[in-house]
Amino acid sequence: MIIEKINSPDNLKRLSDDELHTLTSEIRTALITKMSKLGGHMASNLGVVEITVALHKVFNSPIDKIIFDVSHQSYVHKILTGRKEAFLYEEHFEDVSGYSNPEESSHDFFNIGHTSTSISLACGMAKARDLKGDNENIIAVIGDASLDGGEAFEALNYAKELHSGLIVVLNDNNMSIPENYGGLHDLLNTLRTNRGQVENNFFSSLGFEYKFVQDGHNLCELLEVFESVKDTDHPVVVHCCTQKGKGYKFAEEEKEKWHWAHPFNIETGEYISGVPEENYGAIVAEYLLKKMQSDKDVVVVAASTPLCIGFNADRRKLAGKQFVDVGIAEQNALSMTAAIAKRGGKPVFATNSTFYQRGYDQIEQEMCITKCPATMILSHASVWGHTNDTHVGLYDIALFANVPNLTYLAPTNCEEYIAMLDWSIEQQEIPVAIRIPWTKVHHAENSVRNDYSDTKYEVTKVGSQVAIIALGSFYQIGEAVVKLLKDKGINATLINPLFISGIDGETLDNLKDHHELVITLEDGIINGGFGAKIAQYYSLSPIKVMNKAFSMNIPSRYIPDDLMRKNRLLPVQIVEDIIGIVGGRDE
Amino acid sequence: MIIEKINSPDNLKRLSDDELHTLTSEIRTALITKMSKLGGHMASNLGVVEITVALHKVFNSPIDKIIFDVSHQSYVHKILTGRKEAFLYEEHFEDVSGYSNPEESSHDFFNIGHTSTSISLACGMAKARDLKGDNENIIAVIGDASLDGGEAFEALNYAKELHSGLIVVLNDNNMSIPENYGGLHDLLNTLRTNRGQVENNFFSSLGFEYKFVQDGHNLCELLEVFESVKDTDHPVVVHCCTQKGKGYKFAEEEKEKWHWAHPFNIETGEYISGVPEENYGAIVAEYLLKKMQSDKDVVVVAASTPLCIGFNADRRKLAGKQFVDVGIAEQNALSMTAAIAKRGGKPVFATNSTFYQRGYDQIEQEMCITKCPATMILSHASVWGHTNDTHVGLYDIALFANVPNLTYLAPTNCEEYIAMLDWSIEQQEIPVAIRIPWTKVHHAENSVRNDYSDTKYEVTKVGSQVAIIALGSFYQIGEAVVKLLKDKGINATLINPLFISGIDGETLDNLKDHHELVITLEDGIINGGFGAKIAQYYSLSPIKVMNKAFSMNIPSRYIPDDLMRKNRLLPVQIVEDIIGIVGGRDE
Repeated sequence: MIIEKINSPDNLKRLSDDELHTLTSEIRTALITKMSKLGGHMASNLGVVEITVALHKVFNSPIDKIIFDVSHQSYVHKILTGRKEAFLYEEHFEDVSGYSNPEESSHDFFNIGHTSTSISLACGMAKARDLKGDNENIIAVIGDASLDGGEAFEALNYAKELHSGLIVVLNDNNMSIPENYGGLHDLLNTLRTNRGQVENNFFSSLGFEYKFVQDGHNLCELLEVFESVKDTDHPVVVHCCTQKGKGYKFAEEEKEKWHWAHPFNIETGEYISGVPEENYGAIVAEYLLKKMQSDKDVVVVAASTPLCIGFNADRRKLAGKQFVDVGIAEQNALSMTAAIAKRGGKPVFATNSTFYQRGYDQIEQEMCITKCPATMILSHASVWGHTNDTHVGLYDIALFANVPNLTYLAPTNCEEYIAMLDWSIEQQEIPVAIRIPWTKVHHAENSVRNDYSDTKYEVTKVGSQVAIIALGSFYQIGEAVVKLLKDKGINATLINPLFISGIDGETLDNLKDHHELVITLEDGIINGGFGAKIAQYYSLSPIKVMNKAFSMNIPSRYIPDDLMRKNRLLPVQIVEDIIGIVGGRDE
Repeated sequence: MIIEKINSPDNLKRLSDDELHTLTSEIRTALITKMSKLGGHMASNLGVVEITVALHKVFNSPIDKIIFDVSHQSYVHKILTGRKEAFLYEEHFEDVSGYSNPEESSHDFFNIGHTSTSISLACGMAKARDLKGDNENIIAVIGDASLDGGEAFEALNYAKELHSGLIVVLNDNNMSIPENYGGLHDLLNTLRTNRGQVENNFFSSLGFEYKFVQDGHNLCELLEVFESVKDTDHPVVVHCCTQKGKGYKFAEEEKEKWHWAHPFNIETGEYISGVPEENYGAIVAEYLLKKMQSDKDVVVVAASTPLCIGFNADRRKLAGKQFVDVGIAEQNALSMTAAIAKRGGKPVFATNSTFYQRGYDQIEQEMCITKCPATMILSHASVWGHTNDTHVGLYDIALFANVPNLTYLAPTNCEEYIAMLDWSIEQQEIPVAIRIPWTKVHHAENSVRNDYSDTKYEVTKVGSQVAIIALGSFYQIGEAVVKLLKDKGINATLINPLFISGIDGETLDNLKDHHELVITLEDGIINGGFGAKIAQYYSLSPIKVMNKAFSMNIPSRYIPDDLMRKNRLLPVQIVEDIIGIVGGRDE
């Protein structure tokens, strides 16, 4: 096989057109085979096979610098830059991460997981190049909806000021993660239909030279256009029309399902391990659809990740005008959500914990200083969420719990989650954020409260000496710790705090009489977190506080159990550490 | 005077064209007079007098909703919506804030201080309007460079999806705070020159109807165009060419100086109170210019606020290609800064504490996960910085100190500041942020260290019983507290921690033997702050910790001394609280 002989992009230079063609087939087979076993970003990588091969044939990486946006489009690049083993041989599958990674290769420059940054990064590299008097090509590969994000525009707007060479390769696959939206999307459609001709060209309006490639899977066409822009002295955009999922029938047909594939049967296209039948996504989506039917003011806002609250294509259709997807544009989504609430609507915005980072300013300013009574839902906010450093869901507590006027809630089971959501949608006073418990679906043993206006923790078991305050997804760990402590002769108190923001001083004061140690358990980083507030609260009292959470040393990929163990967050470890402080029957 | 009779926009409806004309003159006089005494956003408001009058004549606020971007352009709107007294009568000058404020008026909908949000907010209001089946006009007034920010683009891109009416009024004054940059700026210039004609129209490319107003100070032209777009059923942009500073000679000539004016002499245009001769801006700018001369890799990156490190027009010219301004586009600025460092350049980015919020994600991802060795400088990060809730510089500690791989430094005097900056520029390992001391310029009494690789606090006075850890701008408060404690018979230890991120465990452990109370003083909010880390560190030890910082209840405007007093941060109050815990000679 040709692919087996590719150790660096140099090996491409000597291949004939026919051999390059064969190589693209071999790459597709490797991608499909690996992902059928391990899962991964499937459809987007199948769509950039020819673009990536052509780039590495024409340009001279790593002297010339190719920066992949989102970088879940960089699997083919990895294959061509000395990392083919990780796609060919099962024992090496785990050798590479799912994103570009400077620790893996000198052909990768940044850890890129969030969208829309590639043109900015390319502008920065071009600026440094020009200051040094060097002259390499710098290429940003953007697409798969990453052009929707505001930063991409900021950089497109700036590029002209470089007065120098910059190449933007737009992988236009006509998709975001779900469908695509907006004026730019319509413009790209017109360009696709009219072979690159349009009355008002967006890219030209910003000072870019514009090149059009009708078939982004035609190697000859790609090689020709890349040769023509090589060593440009001004900003150029190369608009390549591609098909997301190209070469795997099921992915071509169902692009959203195959954006990120679970392990699957290659013949049938069926996922081998599916989502459990009872899951928070489906539960909350059904609740919201029902709510929408009885109240036309209820509206779900998404930024390309509606599946995180179960809004699949069927449910989006049912919601109709009460569903809004703005594309991968969290800033716009959050300001819009704030304004919908201000104008009397009842908006619910949802996305992954990590993607909220893009809209911190809008949360703090538009949403919270103005006190717009909107609801924000955070998914994947857990050690069990995404396990790449760029997608980790452990930072949101430090962000959301330190914003004025925001109530940040952590349900521990299904009934609490729905009760909090319903309360939040109906109240008209404050912005509210809810952290989805990232565990299997648990159910409440007793009735849950329906009003979350007052910061009031729930003492679920009254004990003494040791009190465990176990937040959200870690509540069940708290239960396990209490059980284990019983065997050590310690009758611990267990608290479900429900609130991440604010402090229930009354409950905390009550602990002082009969407890010497308070443990906080949280599914987030230790810095600036929930536990820090509890430690701060008791800092003048004799009560001891032990914060159990994650240090910020998060590796580029991790296995949840390992990270838990390393941070001494497994129940037995927590118990050991408690006994180390208060002693126990066995000691 | 006509202005005295304007109690609401209704009063405009009956005025003749001549009377409206007279009103615009009276408004200008009021603005200039008030700002000559109090200071404020001068040039931008002088530029939108006619636009605002015409909007309120044609539309029916507050049913029709006018949303001012940045909202430092909203003074005229305030005059016309029942708040004229605050601009006419000195005793009422302080009645209104410098930004739109829902607590002041039903004609204001959001507290808007950061740029580029108005179109998003208008989209959200339009969405809620449409769900309710209402039909008012919703108008975003954007401009004064606020179109540069990515969120504005995200919303322009989305607007078409509303399938409904939306009006964007672009106040094109040909300026940012300093000069304007970029492809969009060049496009607007072409449109200005060619009476609205251009080959590729940016706004049309995104699906907007485009209207052009050659003279944005011509009331008749404005009234006509606003009448023509009233009740539109699709998105329209009205591009109005205006002159920043219009009507005040000095502001027309020196737009950057007059963007925000200090109190001034109306006749001469001279500021009454100037910047002190010795100031951190000038000191650091001169240091950086010298550094640039000997090292062509050093480059200053700005996002429209270069004055915060003293880069005025003369110094920008001297820096030449080693100075970059990307416009009000912090995301692009931060990713570019990261990439310049990655490519071997030595970038220094600077802006106000509050504006970094817009780029939190880029800091955490591109800058810090990838460990790009760039330098970030934070200005106005203090209770003595901006005193409006939307611009408060008290949140950055919670943000910057809880990011992986970032070293966040707090100098307390001039020599430390320059030493930290020089070390940061030269080191090639990690991203570094530096918080400018927001006090008068203090000088070091002893030599300062030149390596900040290790988190090591400086014990500046060895005492016992009580230790004061006084961070950055609050170090001098620590000195004052130590002096006052001496009178109470307490010989306190004083520590200059230098580092906001990280913990110097050795120094903290050493305190345990001879101290019962540790006080932390920081110029930031208490939540997620520096003190919280110290409280967390000691949470299992018998040592008591008192965190002195600001609660998140920050009013929409404040007087620094009052906010200090309210949070018990004045030296005498701190001493009282210490004595309350440890007792003292006088008790």
